Amino acid sequence: MTAREVQTLIRAGLPMAEDIDLRIDRLDEAGVLARVPFHAKLVRPGGTLSGPTIMALGDAAMYAVVLGRLGRVEMAVTSNLNINFLVKPQPVDLLAEASILRLSRRQAVCEVSLYSAGNEAELVAHVTGTYALPI
Amino acid sequence: MTAREVQTLIRAGLPMAEDIDLRIDRLDEAGVLARVPFHAKLVRPGGTLSGPTIMALGDAAMYAVVLGRLGRVEMAVTSNLNINFLVKPQPVDLLAEASILRLSRRQAVCEVSLYSAGNEAELVAHVTGTYALPI
Amino acid sequence: MTAREVQTLIRAGLPMAEDIDLRIDRLDEAGVLARVPFHAKLVRPGGTLSGPTIMALGDAAMYAVVLGRLGRVEMAVTSNLNINFLVKPQPVDLLAEASILRLSRRQAVCEVSLYSAGNEAELVAHVTGTYALPI
Amino acid sequence: MTAREVQTLIRAGLPMAEDIDLRIDRLDEAGVLARVPFHAKLVRPGGTLSGPTIMALGDAAMYAVVLGRLGRVEMAVTSNLNINFLVKPQPVDLLAEASILRLSRRQAVCEVSLYSAGNEAELVAHVTGTYALPI
Repeated sequence: MTAREVQTLIRAGLPMAEDIDLRIDRLDEAGVLARVPFHAKLVRPGGTLSGPTIMALGDAAMYAVVLGRLGRVEMAVTSNLNINFLVKPQPVDLLAEASILRLSRRQAVCEVSLYSAGNEAELVAHVTGTYALPI
Repeated sequence: MTAREVQTLIRAGLPMAEDIDLRIDRLDEAGVLARVPFHAKLVRPGGTLSGPTIMALGDAAMYAVVLGRLGRVEMAVTSNLNINFLVKPQPVDLLAEASILRLSRRQAVCEVSLYSAGNEAELVAHVTGTYALPI
Repeated sequence: MTAREVQTLIRAGLPMAEDIDLRIDRLDEAGVLARVPFHAKLVRPGGTLSGPTIMALGDAAMYAVVLGRLGRVEMAVTSNLNINFLVKPQPVDLLAEASILRLSRRQAVCEVSLYSAGNEAELVAHVTGTYALPI
Repeated sequence: MTAREVQTLIRAGLPMAEDIDLRIDRLDEAGVLARVPFHAKLVRPGGTLSGPTIMALGDAAMYAVVLGRLGRVEMAVTSNLNINFLVKPQPVDLLAEASILRLSRRQAVCEVSLYSAGNEAELVAHVTGTYALPI
């Protein structure tokens, strides 16, 4: 599947992905680059993206990297997600680079690094998680 | 703070809490009972609430239990959240019971059990997480 | 399997369980109570049990509760473990109460509460984790 | 501190590090390379290192990278550790590469990739965790 096809599939299936205007910028062998464009409505007091928005991006990036590797496995579901919030996001787009740490018949364990656009060296959050695969 | 005050504070501060129509049903010494009323717009294909909605409820329930214990600590932020998704939620309200496992000067470690209304014995998801407190 | 049979199986299979003198005190429908007797050799500077000892107990308690429910599934392996360390253990036995949050064909998601003997109300650590089951 | 000094400090303070013959091979700006030499006594049935040994190495590697960056902060303690077990370790030394994702005044959030010697491309396990720092 292409980045655009994955984006369409996720946004059709996940209302919250539509709400946060989720984009899949890149999808290749190495993984996925996903994006939440900066929108004022997502910002909480203090000027930062909310935790749930950051988690939603992390989860969607994991799903995208699984779809990119396996094709249209719509029944894949998150079974575990662990997130560490590291620094406040800046008032810019939030990016997420996802890759697969381990793919087995049963599940895909993924890692996602999230950072503010233009500031790749400073992680906003770090996610590891597991997608259970239909078997 | 009362349940209603906490609900108002969270919904004012967190756009996603407003989107999912988050309610705080109960807040007392023992903890918090929070709720996402069932709305068709939150449902993903297959008829279940999405993972991000479930995570948003888990995070909000943790925040509510912290506010309930400490009062108006608006600068408290999630530093870690771990969630296990256990069974598909049913097409009914989703409830979250949150309590504090450990409160120290620096942080509150919380636990949240999420289940479909009327089916308390079967957990939909289980969350543990940490709120960092302003010091 | 009885508590004693599970204890023997775990200690035979896991050298570290032998090193920490792991005991299974109780095993029934509700779950497992496991114990690391206080031994000076396990104590780190400052007088507390080490993190790895606490993690080993948490993992063994999860394994015991899975064996107690499913019988002799020796090929069950931990796939994920998340632990929050909450307070320093006291210089007494360390206890672990484990239960199963969700048992499916593929995996068992477990929860473990760890506390110092005689001080059940104050958790030393809290574990959630997943055992993958042979299918 | 040098790799050797860190190794000595950890082994003096943590009995389990001595039991697993923990080595710090390298410690520099980028992070830490730690090692558990292959010893038959650590192997569980089926020929693999046990989960607790793998967790102990992950925790020690995090502690080493914190000591390497901050110097002799003996009171630093693990507050959270999340581990995904990915493939069985091979009957060789187990290596752990640790780095710091985020260092703040209060805590260090770390990441550790564990793999069998000679097989760096296939992770045996992946750890993220938090060390609370004395303030």
